[in-house]
Amino acid sequence: MAARNVLFIMCDQLRWDHLGCAGHPFIRTPNIDALAARGVRFSQAYVQSGICGPSRMSFYTGRYVASHGATHNRVPLSVGEVTLGWHLREAGRTLALAGKTHMLPDARGMKRLLLDGQDELAVLLREGWFSLVDRHDGHHAETDSAYAHWLRAQGYDSQDPWTDHVIAVENEKGEVLNGWKMRNARLPARVREEHSETAYTTDQALRFIEGQGESPWVLHLSYVKPHWPYVAPAPYHAMYSLEQCLPVRRHEAERGPGAHPLLREFQQEEVAQSFQRDECIAAVRPTYQGLISQVDAHLGRVWDLLERTGRWKDTLVIFTSDHGDYLGDHWLGEKELFHDCVQRVPFILHDPLPAADATRGTVEGRFVEAIDVVPTILDALGLEAQPHVLEGRSLLPLARGEAVEWREAAFSELDFTFRAARRRLGLPTGQHRGFMVRTARWKYIHWTSGLRPQLYDLAADSEEFFDLGADPAQEEVRAGMRERLWEWAANLRCRTTLTWAEAEFRTDRHKAAGVFYGEW
Amino acid sequence: MAARNVLFIMCDQLRWDHLGCAGHPFIRTPNIDALAARGVRFSQAYVQSGICGPSRMSFYTGRYVASHGATHNRVPLSVGEVTLGWHLREAGRTLALAGKTHMLPDARGMKRLLLDGQDELAVLLREGWFSLVDRHDGHHAETDSAYAHWLRAQGYDSQDPWTDHVIAVENEKGEVLNGWKMRNARLPARVREEHSETAYTTDQALRFIEGQGESPWVLHLSYVKPHWPYVAPAPYHAMYSLEQCLPVRRHEAERGPGAHPLLREFQQEEVAQSFQRDECIAAVRPTYQGLISQVDAHLGRVWDLLERTGRWKDTLVIFTSDHGDYLGDHWLGEKELFHDCVQRVPFILHDPLPAADATRGTVEGRFVEAIDVVPTILDALGLEAQPHVLEGRSLLPLARGEAVEWREAAFSELDFTFRAARRRLGLPTGQHRGFMVRTARWKYIHWTSGLRPQLYDLAADSEEFFDLGADPAQEEVRAGMRERLWEWAANLRCRTTLTWAEAEFRTDRHKAAGVFYGEW
Repeated sequence: MAARNVLFIMCDQLRWDHLGCAGHPFIRTPNIDALAARGVRFSQAYVQSGICGPSRMSFYTGRYVASHGATHNRVPLSVGEVTLGWHLREAGRTLALAGKTHMLPDARGMKRLLLDGQDELAVLLREGWFSLVDRHDGHHAETDSAYAHWLRAQGYDSQDPWTDHVIAVENEKGEVLNGWKMRNARLPARVREEHSETAYTTDQALRFIEGQGESPWVLHLSYVKPHWPYVAPAPYHAMYSLEQCLPVRRHEAERGPGAHPLLREFQQEEVAQSFQRDECIAAVRPTYQGLISQVDAHLGRVWDLLERTGRWKDTLVIFTSDHGDYLGDHWLGEKELFHDCVQRVPFILHDPLPAADATRGTVEGRFVEAIDVVPTILDALGLEAQPHVLEGRSLLPLARGEAVEWREAAFSELDFTFRAARRRLGLPTGQHRGFMVRTARWKYIHWTSGLRPQLYDLAADSEEFFDLGADPAQEEVRAGMRERLWEWAANLRCRTTLTWAEAEFRTDRHKAAGVFYGEW
Repeated sequence: MAARNVLFIMCDQLRWDHLGCAGHPFIRTPNIDALAARGVRFSQAYVQSGICGPSRMSFYTGRYVASHGATHNRVPLSVGEVTLGWHLREAGRTLALAGKTHMLPDARGMKRLLLDGQDELAVLLREGWFSLVDRHDGHHAETDSAYAHWLRAQGYDSQDPWTDHVIAVENEKGEVLNGWKMRNARLPARVREEHSETAYTTDQALRFIEGQGESPWVLHLSYVKPHWPYVAPAPYHAMYSLEQCLPVRRHEAERGPGAHPLLREFQQEEVAQSFQRDECIAAVRPTYQGLISQVDAHLGRVWDLLERTGRWKDTLVIFTSDHGDYLGDHWLGEKELFHDCVQRVPFILHDPLPAADATRGTVEGRFVEAIDVVPTILDALGLEAQPHVLEGRSLLPLARGEAVEWREAAFSELDFTFRAARRRLGLPTGQHRGFMVRTARWKYIHWTSGLRPQLYDLAADSEEFFDLGADPAQEEVRAGMRERLWEWAANLRCRTTLTWAEAEFRTDRHKAAGVFYGEW
């Protein structure tokens, strides 16, 4: 028995701890909490990279960043890689998209293979095998997008309605202010709530689901929020006070002389400097929460449709995020580095089958990784598992309470080539990488390029303030964590051109292939 | 100033120690020795895998097996990978092939990308971007190949002249015997020397070079010998006596109860069982040497052409092999495992430029890896270095006596999924890997799938008889070698879709791309 439909929902830059069901004392996320009550909430879910592009490519390929190679934003996904959309297509299904993917095609690879045309295949490759209901990436002006055209049709008279309305704000005097500037984050967007990105993308998803009728479907509903620009439409811009936000988590030790050189350099980036101002935190955090409550409200519309059409009973639903947000924690803004507020994400799984009834409403603490999404979806739909390519595991056994051996660590990576911090450290161009391994107790971060490692004892220091990466007393722990990293690297899936069944078939079969070596 | 032509010569299964210039006391390889006198002989050259397919894909892509993914024979090279042929083509040059490549195209990937047609691109992809002068892989019957047609035209009246003549032998009574059977290795092939594979492939190369006239060229001259079937045409079948062969190197410790489980299982494979018979060694080794002397003799024809046409002065010549051959050493036959007689190969580089004059005739002991060939060729031709894809280094600075920092270890890999030994160990299908790191003193081998490591102290045990992989006293050494492996893995080139220049250009450039995050 298999699920019929899949709704794979992603937020952008949503921290794991910014949900009611995750224990946030003030934020209101009743619909996401309701999903958690219908399914399993995984409290230890980690992304494979703390930045949109590589994290999403891991979600979409089911592979670690070291394997798919799209190591940072705007690094193309190789034309040789395949995604969930391809696996579904091979099985006669379609992967629809409403919202963001951050997919950048491998233009050079496509040109090499003469695939740089305008035919269906080229379009699919450019979209990473997604079929577009509507794509909206939401991090720069797209004046010719469907959303821009639609906004103009709604009366927003602008060449660039995203910049002029969606992410622009207005003060009490009616003056238009720049929404990129975080000092303006408490002001309302110059767009009506029902015309905002979150509303628009939800509309697209609802239209798609309704249009499918009784036909099965797989939809990636991918919100660009609560990602910056931190601009919310009324009433969400004013929904929370600073007192209703989580306290900032930072410690002087993190910027003292013993702090890790790369951490210190990231603290010099403009976004970190801004978030080191208390007034920036005070401006951004309430609006960030408002944006989350807005997403939650629109998910309520989606839940209503599933309810109305009887689709809860046959639809697998995944809710997660591509990474978190520092919001001033650790003297940082944005993301990329390996603290839990960036690497750990919300993850809720609703498995519609009766087999999962016993776990509904429970919290599961075993490690989930972003790469588990593709195997979970294929498993739910009863499709081939593809273990020769996929590095994650189906979560359905956990949702169904089956006894299984499970992983004891989560892994994440960063290509830090692209930040000025790298240049300030005097490192030349090339490929500069960081690798995180996190167990229940320890978090270890290995840096290439001659940088020392980081180590946090999460049992004693759940806030990740005290870096033991240079502590002579912890060398044994560090060595053990490096062993884990090496074991991880040694087991990456590199032989992707042959299925495991083919490998089994070819084992010890040279004579059947007419090759009689070795006979005396 | 750049070289004009490149002649990249490869033997198949030629051990490093089976050349006169490498110190073999009896073998006659005057032409290879002459090349060593004209250039630099690298005495510590290692392949990236001890078996044809993956080793060659590393030679052709300039990438470790973990990166190119063609982990064993008959594992397709992903359509997303590029080879020397592509790099040359992008620069307006062509890579010609005479002989063997063991290239297996990624049929599934080509189909996915609708590239499974008959056009020029499909043909190039099937050949790994080689343009064929003539391809002859020489390990199974190819009844419709150009070589088979040519043999028939020479009067070999057979549907399958390779099986019936080239690798068949005849005894004194004129009876035809099976050339696959190693017991028959001392008998002459049923083909005239000038019609043998080595002669034929040389003919193709000479014809190609002559046909190029004054046009520049890059040719891969790739012999299938001295690879099995161990059958040599007269007079080479009788050129050497057993007394003129190297002594077999094996020790009871290697098959005792303390031996590594995978080594023991490989010793159970049919080819190893055969080579554990002294009569098998006695039959094969002399013929193996004869096949090498035959290759050497035909290389003399190539040298003559270069001399006659004045091409030595502008032609880079590389001579190497894709791996060695156990020939009974370590109680094994064939290859795959990590002993030096398999992993270490001949490597001679003739750099035609005057800058290399000072090193002519010298022996260089620093580590060379197969992945260095592509960077060396691109460097010699004055083409772009492609460091975002290539994992090897140009050897020209060494040939030119320049002071450079150099690697201190060589790495090799094995996918041991495909042998019955894996099944006998009770391991399921999947991906089962071995990783070798070899320094000047130590050789360490890491196995996945729960197998213990191997360790050899080459200073005390140059024969690699005594495995210290389980010796409690050596845990520190083993841990250090695992650290090297992890460092190696952490620095593999995964971000292949973006050049380093592009990465530099994109560093700290979000604002120029219209993304103004982080401003207060």
